[in-house]
Amino acid sequence: MGTKGKVIKCKAAITWKANKPLSVEEVEGASLKAHEVRIQIIATTLCHTDAHVIHPQFEGFPVILGHEAAGIVESVGPRVTNFKPGDKVIPLYTPQCRKCKFCLSSHTNFCGKIKHFKTPMGDQKLMEDKTSRFTCRGRLYHFMGTSTFSQYTVVSDVNLAKVDDDASLERVCLLGCAFSTGYGAVVNIAKVTPGSTCATFGLGGVSLSAVIGYKAAEASRIIVIDIKSEKFTKARSLGETNCLNPRDLDKPIQEVIVEMTNGGVDFVFECVGGAKIMRAALDSITVGWGVCTIRVNVGDNGLSVSAVELIMGRTLNGTSFGDWKGIDSVPKLAADYKNKKFDLDALVSHTLASDKVNEAFDVMYQRKSIRTVLLF
Amino acid sequence: MGTKGKVIKCKAAITWKANKPLSVEEVEGASLKAHEVRIQIIATTLCHTDAHVIHPQFEGFPVILGHEAAGIVESVGPRVTNFKPGDKVIPLYTPQCRKCKFCLSSHTNFCGKIKHFKTPMGDQKLMEDKTSRFTCRGRLYHFMGTSTFSQYTVVSDVNLAKVDDDASLERVCLLGCAFSTGYGAVVNIAKVTPGSTCATFGLGGVSLSAVIGYKAAEASRIIVIDIKSEKFTKARSLGETNCLNPRDLDKPIQEVIVEMTNGGVDFVFECVGGAKIMRAALDSITVGWGVCTIRVNVGDNGLSVSAVELIMGRTLNGTSFGDWKGIDSVPKLAADYKNKKFDLDALVSHTLASDKVNEAFDVMYQRKSIRTVLLF
Repeated sequence: MGTKGKVIKCKAAITWKANKPLSVEEVEGASLKAHEVRIQIIATTLCHTDAHVIHPQFEGFPVILGHEAAGIVESVGPRVTNFKPGDKVIPLYTPQCRKCKFCLSSHTNFCGKIKHFKTPMGDQKLMEDKTSRFTCRGRLYHFMGTSTFSQYTVVSDVNLAKVDDDASLERVCLLGCAFSTGYGAVVNIAKVTPGSTCATFGLGGVSLSAVIGYKAAEASRIIVIDIKSEKFTKARSLGETNCLNPRDLDKPIQEVIVEMTNGGVDFVFECVGGAKIMRAALDSITVGWGVCTIRVNVGDNGLSVSAVELIMGRTLNGTSFGDWKGIDSVPKLAADYKNKKFDLDALVSHTLASDKVNEAFDVMYQRKSIRTVLLF
Repeated sequence: MGTKGKVIKCKAAITWKANKPLSVEEVEGASLKAHEVRIQIIATTLCHTDAHVIHPQFEGFPVILGHEAAGIVESVGPRVTNFKPGDKVIPLYTPQCRKCKFCLSSHTNFCGKIKHFKTPMGDQKLMEDKTSRFTCRGRLYHFMGTSTFSQYTVVSDVNLAKVDDDASLERVCLLGCAFSTGYGAVVNIAKVTPGSTCATFGLGGVSLSAVIGYKAAEASRIIVIDIKSEKFTKARSLGETNCLNPRDLDKPIQEVIVEMTNGGVDFVFECVGGAKIMRAALDSITVGWGVCTIRVNVGDNGLSVSAVELIMGRTLNGTSFGDWKGIDSVPKLAADYKNKKFDLDALVSHTLASDKVNEAFDVMYQRKSIRTVLLF
């Protein structure tokens, strides 16, 4: 560990350009500046947020992707006071500076450290001084302030949550995005009430976490919608649910849901993306009090909402990282997991070595995986 | 009063067809059936909801319009237990049957007595037995279950709220729509918090009532937007507000609001209608926690909302009658008015005799009025 805080070399999966496989190569990690922490990543997972940026319009190539992980602090830069080498940690793509108007408000988990709000990932493709800590035949961009597809990554100390020393990093890595987002969408944003009827569109790691949230919120009925019926086993493993595959139905999914619930569900969580699915989700909620929570941005024009749909008592909202202020909340979620308040095993469909990152993307694109955990 | 409950003749303003002046004529009021109440209307007002139906596609001609009024019970039909002749009352276009799943829920003011939910006015163009109580050279339709542009009207006993005997009917008539809607939108739907920054698009009776709600909720800053600067005097009479006329600005109104509030208001109430104004309203709220509440349906395609706008922490909702359960809440609002918890005078710009109903529509179309009270 003689390299602590200094220049190091390590393996990372680089995305050189859009629509190409990732390339595992040796990268150089620069020395740390003020308020920066270098982390040895132990486990990382991936989701469509990593995949969506593998798109020609993404302006951050070449890049080290990855935003959902857990690791151990290797070293800390100057003026880092809250972390020390050996700490178990979870990188946070939503920072918490504790100083901006957002951090000082109890109404959001956003942070002014993100300089633009066009996407939840903000502008975190470089460190705060507008330079990168990664080099491989030139500068590599960071991703969402986390870049977890690397043996060692560097994050700002406001983008990092400490967890207990006995935390299982192969599981709490899921608190870096999937679980926190889906569970928080339900308990923090939708504020699901006991006895309510709930649905989720899509059945990946985030949606399954929403199902766990629905259970925790004591929903009386949970309807899960996906076009891959194989995934329903996972949902059923969490408890009684109604599983619907729109491809098996001869009516639009929203009509089926409205009929089977006598007017529509109380809460729906939309976790597929695109105008058509957003419309189906909004059509699935009841007049009077139905809440539709949107999670996925696929960059299309979105949803056309008539005034009367809203006037009839529907609410449309959205979530990024489940409204958790990460530094405050992720340690508590990790403790809740340790204390068996919820299980994370159901979210993990595959476990692979970190150099199998392209295989992990493949099973995700084929909709075969829930979450794949990559181990370094 | 020898005609109690029997056939009577009285004056009413009939709308025979779209885009024509209303015609004050003698109508025949049929005898009452079970659960029906005949009311002598003392004061009625009007709003764009009455005007919007003066439209070729409206299928309820000829009709007696009017939905915001106060009066005195003239007689009651069989099985009416909660009202007696002489009671001061306010007709309710949103019924409260106390039996349906909506009435039994604390989450909405809708009622299953409205059989379809395509508009808040529902299908109340006939009484529950699908017949009318009004005739003038043939059947006249009811409107929103209220039809208050008549010396005497008939409503179901679930569409009626009793107020105290000393209530001022010339003022509490405004609780039948404008005040309850705007004030309730702010306190019940948006749930405005103390210290927040708020805006309202449009400055009619409903919006001014929202301003009263903002004051009651202890908003720290209130921004009022209208294209008729003459109306700003009314807003200022309620206390310190920022008044903006988009026609006086060289930038889009939403940009001006975002700049003057350092990122957008916390709450906006949209009370003009149409996709363009809904868009301006949504653009005026802050990321993180901004709430945009929609009130007006002009029947266009509505608002195109991108997923990312919602994911960044915005909430879009709507209101009909301010989420008040009318039979329970309107009496309390009337008592609050009597006890000077809020004032209603600011909402009244004109007072006219009831036969001047066309004049009242004219000043409304010219955007010169806030509310015109018509007295019988």
